[in-house]
Amino acid sequence: MIEPGEAIGLVETQRAELFTAERPLLLGSGRQLAPVEVAFETYGELNEDRSNAVFICHALTADAHAAGHHGDPERRGWWDNLIGPGRPVDTDRCFVVVPNLLGGCQGTTGPSSIDPATGQPYGLRFPALSVRDLVTVHRRLLEHLGIERPMAVVGGSLGGMQALQWALDYPEEIGGAALICASSRLTAQNIAFSAVAREAIMRDPDFNGGDFYGRERGPELGLALARMTAHITYLSEEAMRQKFGRRRQDPDAPPVEPGVAESDFDVDFQVESYLRHQGLSFLDRFDANTYLYFSRMMDRFDPFSEPEAFQRMKQLVTRFLVVSFDSDWRFDTGHSRVIQRALARAGAQVSFREIESPWGHDSFLLEIPEYHRTVQTFLNRLLEEQ
Amino acid sequence: MIEPGEAIGLVETQRAELFTAERPLLLGSGRQLAPVEVAFETYGELNEDRSNAVFICHALTADAHAAGHHGDPERRGWWDNLIGPGRPVDTDRCFVVVPNLLGGCQGTTGPSSIDPATGQPYGLRFPALSVRDLVTVHRRLLEHLGIERPMAVVGGSLGGMQALQWALDYPEEIGGAALICASSRLTAQNIAFSAVAREAIMRDPDFNGGDFYGRERGPELGLALARMTAHITYLSEEAMRQKFGRRRQDPDAPPVEPGVAESDFDVDFQVESYLRHQGLSFLDRFDANTYLYFSRMMDRFDPFSEPEAFQRMKQLVTRFLVVSFDSDWRFDTGHSRVIQRALARAGAQVSFREIESPWGHDSFLLEIPEYHRTVQTFLNRLLEEQ
Repeated sequence: MIEPGEAIGLVETQRAELFTAERPLLLGSGRQLAPVEVAFETYGELNEDRSNAVFICHALTADAHAAGHHGDPERRGWWDNLIGPGRPVDTDRCFVVVPNLLGGCQGTTGPSSIDPATGQPYGLRFPALSVRDLVTVHRRLLEHLGIERPMAVVGGSLGGMQALQWALDYPEEIGGAALICASSRLTAQNIAFSAVAREAIMRDPDFNGGDFYGRERGPELGLALARMTAHITYLSEEAMRQKFGRRRQDPDAPPVEPGVAESDFDVDFQVESYLRHQGLSFLDRFDANTYLYFSRMMDRFDPFSEPEAFQRMKQLVTRFLVVSFDSDWRFDTGHSRVIQRALARAGAQVSFREIESPWGHDSFLLEIPEYHRTVQTFLNRLLEEQ
Repeated sequence: MIEPGEAIGLVETQRAELFTAERPLLLGSGRQLAPVEVAFETYGELNEDRSNAVFICHALTADAHAAGHHGDPERRGWWDNLIGPGRPVDTDRCFVVVPNLLGGCQGTTGPSSIDPATGQPYGLRFPALSVRDLVTVHRRLLEHLGIERPMAVVGGSLGGMQALQWALDYPEEIGGAALICASSRLTAQNIAFSAVAREAIMRDPDFNGGDFYGRERGPELGLALARMTAHITYLSEEAMRQKFGRRRQDPDAPPVEPGVAESDFDVDFQVESYLRHQGLSFLDRFDANTYLYFSRMMDRFDPFSEPEAFQRMKQLVTRFLVVSFDSDWRFDTGHSRVIQRALARAGAQVSFREIESPWGHDSFLLEIPEYHRTVQTFLNRLLEEQ
């Protein structure tokens, strides 16, 4: 458990314009993008030889605010249990960098940003993105911070996919990569869930072809439905049973025979109320176009299928940690096994751990002792080898 | 495989007004409903002592047209592989009865029917339903056909839930009950998927509080999304992998780096095209209000929780067959085990079979030899004991 005084205190999100009209971002698709501003946070101190940087890659819907707080100590960053003094990502020893992703909606340039060519938000005119493009921006951010080689890159889910792409593309550059409940290749079922989310957003009558900024209504209905469906896949069936079971929202509701009322189809069970809340609270912080770009980017991610991937992998000096959770059915252990085997076949040093946890995909956000010990051991070893 | 000549030929859907203003349907909620018309089909001949009736209960979205065809031999009933001469439900030996459910939208009175009190469709003024109410209508249909005691009741998914409720409420009345991939109690995850479907329908701007009949647009968006999401849960991950894998809709699409186009978020992978088709084709045949009523009815179904259920179960003479499929994650084998154990504890005769099949929940609709043999053996034994 987190003891008082151990956590990081007040932090601030910084911003940097990393690509400009003079020096634009060249995307994998061949298109250019400028300006590109990136929101990021850092925790801890960079050591003298600039060798203690840990780069954190966030998942689909997170942001640069991974640890500490912005004024209210009760409202902490999304990975505050993992990052801090004495924690697995130890800010007493490491310099931690966390950016909001390219294409995002929490301070980094994305579809809701102003396109200088038109003076209007990009919307769907924002260029298509690949995970490799995210890595390009991450590397430039490190350059901006004066870091040539991060000691480690750590990410869960989509974050792990970025760490994998990075290590494959720049094998000499990364000391260690921790890929937590990641995937190298989504399954048909994964893509199917993404497809329903995109349908919900794009068929919302207020989507307006992606140009909904500044209008009275945007695709809130569709985005909330996308989030609700995704949220079911983030929790295991067992986690839902433990959290909600079949408990009713109104404990005095009649036990079996339903009453007759128009509200009969409104929230009845607690799990319904929870999901609705998840859907609605998501609207305050997320952009529907970013959801489209990121989900499509994940569908298409398949780095081991590239003919040159195995060639590059021969040069891998990165040490890998691959972690899965046994109750995760979003990216189950099979996904992590595929990554582990492909890396091992290429001669990389890979540790693989399947962690017992009833909480499904969301386990990577939780303080699970064996999981945290595993990450800590991995990073400590890299620190000791400095 | 089905040999030519074995299948049932032309069949017709019949209709009967089973409840009238003079003799209304009394629902479990205390409300009355009249008139109630029921659409049904029958196959085979009732024998002299009226002892060879097999009653088929359909699942959430099916109808009375279970076998044979309505004029186009290529378009056959949804359980045509199970029902017919020489098939597991053998129409050479059995008289098969299949109604559309109360609350349905395929010929039986439901939310889209005219409320005689107003002259308008019921919409959400249709009374709330329980599985027990469906059984009340089934029993009246048998009375109408001059049958006191069906030899067997057979149903998959929601159909199995009806068969279970029927056997629990009228233990002396049913010779055998085949409960195929059924549940006696939905999990929080099951309810969560239902909740997202209902949100999609009810928050559709064209839902109009359920009064969308005769208007230019109804909640097609919401209903299609509900169907798409549900469809993912009807197939196993392995079934989706085998059917679609990561195949692209356009095989000449670029392999990894995405192109840049507004249509980038439109259908790309085959599984997306398939799901969209499932969603859209559903609109032609299903009513969004029926979806609400049936999904809520399933959420609330929990017959073993009734204090009197175990008392009644002591009188059970029904023979039960409980079947699950190992890849079904909608109602997995755990659901069937709960049913089997509760029935066995009450002293009922229960055979339980988990069938190997990669096709998930939808397996109950497929011609899987071990499954079909199991149903055939069960019904043959009941026939021989006549």
